[in-house]
Amino acid sequence: MSFSNAKQTKTPIARPQLGTLRIHGPDQNGIVAAFSQLLYGHGCGIVDSEQHTDHSANLFFQRIHFDYSKMLTDRISLGNGVDEVCKRFDMKSALNWGDVRQQVAIMVSKYDHCLWELLLRHRAGELDCDICMILSNHPDLQTVADAFQVPFHVFKVTKDTKEAVEKEELELLATHKVDLVVLARYMQIITDNFCESVSVINIHHSFLPAFIGGKPYHRAHERGVKLIGATAHYATADLDEGPIIEQDITRISHRDEVDDLLRKGRLLEKNVLVHAVKAHIEDRIIVYNNKCVVFDG
Amino acid sequence: MSFSNAKQTKTPIARPQLGTLRIHGPDQNGIVAAFSQLLYGHGCGIVDSEQHTDHSANLFFQRIHFDYSKMLTDRISLGNGVDEVCKRFDMKSALNWGDVRQQVAIMVSKYDHCLWELLLRHRAGELDCDICMILSNHPDLQTVADAFQVPFHVFKVTKDTKEAVEKEELELLATHKVDLVVLARYMQIITDNFCESVSVINIHHSFLPAFIGGKPYHRAHERGVKLIGATAHYATADLDEGPIIEQDITRISHRDEVDDLLRKGRLLEKNVLVHAVKAHIEDRIIVYNNKCVVFDG
Amino acid sequence: MSFSNAKQTKTPIARPQLGTLRIHGPDQNGIVAAFSQLLYGHGCGIVDSEQHTDHSANLFFQRIHFDYSKMLTDRISLGNGVDEVCKRFDMKSALNWGDVRQQVAIMVSKYDHCLWELLLRHRAGELDCDICMILSNHPDLQTVADAFQVPFHVFKVTKDTKEAVEKEELELLATHKVDLVVLARYMQIITDNFCESVSVINIHHSFLPAFIGGKPYHRAHERGVKLIGATAHYATADLDEGPIIEQDITRISHRDEVDDLLRKGRLLEKNVLVHAVKAHIEDRIIVYNNKCVVFDG
Amino acid sequence: MSFSNAKQTKTPIARPQLGTLRIHGPDQNGIVAAFSQLLYGHGCGIVDSEQHTDHSANLFFQRIHFDYSKMLTDRISLGNGVDEVCKRFDMKSALNWGDVRQQVAIMVSKYDHCLWELLLRHRAGELDCDICMILSNHPDLQTVADAFQVPFHVFKVTKDTKEAVEKEELELLATHKVDLVVLARYMQIITDNFCESVSVINIHHSFLPAFIGGKPYHRAHERGVKLIGATAHYATADLDEGPIIEQDITRISHRDEVDDLLRKGRLLEKNVLVHAVKAHIEDRIIVYNNKCVVFDG
Repeated sequence: MSFSNAKQTKTPIARPQLGTLRIHGPDQNGIVAAFSQLLYGHGCGIVDSEQHTDHSANLFFQRIHFDYSKMLTDRISLGNGVDEVCKRFDMKSALNWGDVRQQVAIMVSKYDHCLWELLLRHRAGELDCDICMILSNHPDLQTVADAFQVPFHVFKVTKDTKEAVEKEELELLATHKVDLVVLARYMQIITDNFCESVSVINIHHSFLPAFIGGKPYHRAHERGVKLIGATAHYATADLDEGPIIEQDITRISHRDEVDDLLRKGRLLEKNVLVHAVKAHIEDRIIVYNNKCVVFDG
Repeated sequence: MSFSNAKQTKTPIARPQLGTLRIHGPDQNGIVAAFSQLLYGHGCGIVDSEQHTDHSANLFFQRIHFDYSKMLTDRISLGNGVDEVCKRFDMKSALNWGDVRQQVAIMVSKYDHCLWELLLRHRAGELDCDICMILSNHPDLQTVADAFQVPFHVFKVTKDTKEAVEKEELELLATHKVDLVVLARYMQIITDNFCESVSVINIHHSFLPAFIGGKPYHRAHERGVKLIGATAHYATADLDEGPIIEQDITRISHRDEVDDLLRKGRLLEKNVLVHAVKAHIEDRIIVYNNKCVVFDG
Repeated sequence: MSFSNAKQTKTPIARPQLGTLRIHGPDQNGIVAAFSQLLYGHGCGIVDSEQHTDHSANLFFQRIHFDYSKMLTDRISLGNGVDEVCKRFDMKSALNWGDVRQQVAIMVSKYDHCLWELLLRHRAGELDCDICMILSNHPDLQTVADAFQVPFHVFKVTKDTKEAVEKEELELLATHKVDLVVLARYMQIITDNFCESVSVINIHHSFLPAFIGGKPYHRAHERGVKLIGATAHYATADLDEGPIIEQDITRISHRDEVDDLLRKGRLLEKNVLVHAVKAHIEDRIIVYNNKCVVFDG
Repeated sequence: MSFSNAKQTKTPIARPQLGTLRIHGPDQNGIVAAFSQLLYGHGCGIVDSEQHTDHSANLFFQRIHFDYSKMLTDRISLGNGVDEVCKRFDMKSALNWGDVRQQVAIMVSKYDHCLWELLLRHRAGELDCDICMILSNHPDLQTVADAFQVPFHVFKVTKDTKEAVEKEELELLATHKVDLVVLARYMQIITDNFCESVSVINIHHSFLPAFIGGKPYHRAHERGVKLIGATAHYATADLDEGPIIEQDITRISHRDEVDDLLRKGRLLEKNVLVHAVKAHIEDRIIVYNNKCVVFDG
């Protein structure tokens, strides 16, 4: 018995000839013209383009979705062209040909709500990636992984073994060319080294005001807040403080007990996390200055 | 020319014979029966009643809206009855006969959005109180007060004169029997003494994460948050940390510049503040342990 | 391999001695006092009580959550007392002792998102009922049912056999004493007779403006609406027009294609449906005049 | 006494050298390159650009915000260039130099909440236009107009005089070169001819399900809906069915009486209307096939 993603494996890539080019750098005249001219010259059509200027930082951002099915040249030539224009304008670029699904690994502990939501919405065709493995510091969620036929690896972690274990995990991730690690309520602090080795998205609760430290839902209840929230962000050195990708809240009242807060929090967490993962695997995010431009889907 | 509240002054009190009884104290058996029996015995009908139990604190709360148009006894007798039952159950009570509009004073500085919203929605009949005066540390908003024919008093404040000025203000509030002071973006810290002398509702911005200190909207923009919020609360000694009455948020994106955040923040602030003031003047709030039970309207 | 609800089957009923009494009828003086006095007299404590008056219809509603662990009499006596008071005030009542979990059947076709959400949140302990069977007109979702060890019955339906099949289904439901049928995107019209034989909750999309007839998401896209919604309601003779239990919406923009609308619609549908089912099984709904009072949880 | 817009009249135009070019037409390769090349060639920098493709209709849309402070040619030349490129690609265009504020007229009857919100948020600098006149079929809101020093014209309308009166109104609008008419709860049907003579934005309530005909709030209350909404749209021949610009909703419950629905509806209406007007005057809307692309601000 299994819920493996029949739909997706039958149709390897939804639109096999659509690439994504993301660029950013100092704002200046001529950037848009240069890149659109470049793509046009190579026979690539611009399917979609979004741009943004952070006026206070004087930075320019653009995401171009282009069709290369009638490309007149080849990938290497276009890549060289992009590099050349970037150099001229002092821009950074990320060029994705969109013909290889991103490889995503999920890390979990015992909470299962985020894992289920990721697997089910992936299976419904909403997340255009491969979920190639699940890592956990506990064996509990093995059956969930089995049901979706996703390899499940248990890596027990103690304070003393953390570095060694992370090294093993990173090797496994590297072997499978994992592009993104999703911390789906993984209840371990990961090291700076880990965050720097691969893209990592984390989800955590958020409150107004913030309740730093343990038992935040209990403290939110004690404080009588009227809203609880969740934040999905890239994990960086300082775990809860990486670039924010998505946030949402839900209303609560004095009638909600701690259990209700936890229940509503789970619903928030899973939806906000999937939203963020979807933006990442669709190449819609550009990170800079510890924050994100998230282009619309 | 004026926008004084013709509608309201013509109909002095919407429902002149409806009282409100709020009680709270240790949760125990028989409270509901005792109070409903008491009211019934005095010939008062229960129009509406909401109750709440904070199970973790083992506290019971109830708000009873009752019709005393066919009361068999008199106010003093019923008041004594309430006191007697409260004593028996170790409860606190607030009994409001609802035949005298609450007197509300608004304190402002230069920002006018909250003031306008309070005055216009009061004029539309949404706030069943009298706005009897506006106090300010600046003369700027005199014309707004004039347009609505609300007395406007300027009290300039410096660090040295604050205590003396507050004393004058409190005297003026006392003379007019002011029940509630609304800080409608009043940009002065008020003293503990002031907060303890009269009910004070304040509004301020809220963020996930919190940005404590100056220029929070600028810092929220820098941080790339996806939500901004506002919180209305009772002002207590520690200004931003009193019991929360209402909170709301609005979504933002990377496209929003600081000015957009400020604009969206103003919209939030005025709506959240009016919501909180409305709950207060309708006797729907019970404060305990630095938090609020806010019964629905 | 299975995800059966270990947590719940170990702890049969969360609070075994808590009953629920729902009453409604013409608004009049003395109702609240009479019922609270009745419960008090039998030694039952009121844990929670919500009441509501529909002033335009002059109807009174109350839901009383009471603790009968120290009841001085017995269930039959209290039941008789309730009947007696109801008769005096011309009220209707529903008395639930809360010691037997409600039996819930889910009906599905091929869409699985609502089914998964119901099963997973049931398993997380959020729905305090037994999901005793899944009925379907297609075999497709058998594996989902198996994974949660819920009996799965296929009843193929054609226009000609509908009446006969429904009779069989109703017999099966009756055998298992099913209290509630949840139509979790069941793509068949059910007959009036079916709706009248058991409580049925349905979920459907909602739009502003409404798009009656086929392909509503396509038409919403064509029309350029900025919101899509979902409505959970009791199914009655006229399928989409029974008493509304819960509604919610999500924002869309011109960037959303029909597939995005469908995806966002699925998320809405599953969350709104679970919300409604939860309210029903917690005895928080009173239906009258084709509408619902839904007391807060 | 007056609240005229001191802030705005002192600073005539926020960014005097920023133009907006909106184009749309059949989707095809080379459009983006052609326009960005054109602007670059004339020495204009692209400050911001948003584009959209309606894949089902095979239509392409773009809004380009450009800086012409260092234009190498002149307005006529650039205009000709735009026309030439549009002709080549079979596109339609709207070119706005952004140095003349749009002239906005507001039409009202007796409800004042939308009028106040428009005037106050205009005064706060949030609406970068001139509100050059207020038209009404009743004299009631004269004082509001006076307070903001906006000319107020009363045009009484009867069934028989409607056509003649509208002719006068259109002449007055033409004399003042009015670009946009905002129906701020104007309680008269306007003719098709009027809608075709000038851009008209209207606001109306929206419900799930829709309640067509009179007293919709009463019927929504009777039906027990859990949401009420508002829709801002361009007025066309069929008044409530023009292209939708913005929609929003607010939650209600059984506790809300008709008056509460009306109150919450007013709050929705004024906010949704201002949102839509803001999008229009910032040239962020492209209308096609009875729907709108609304680019973000």
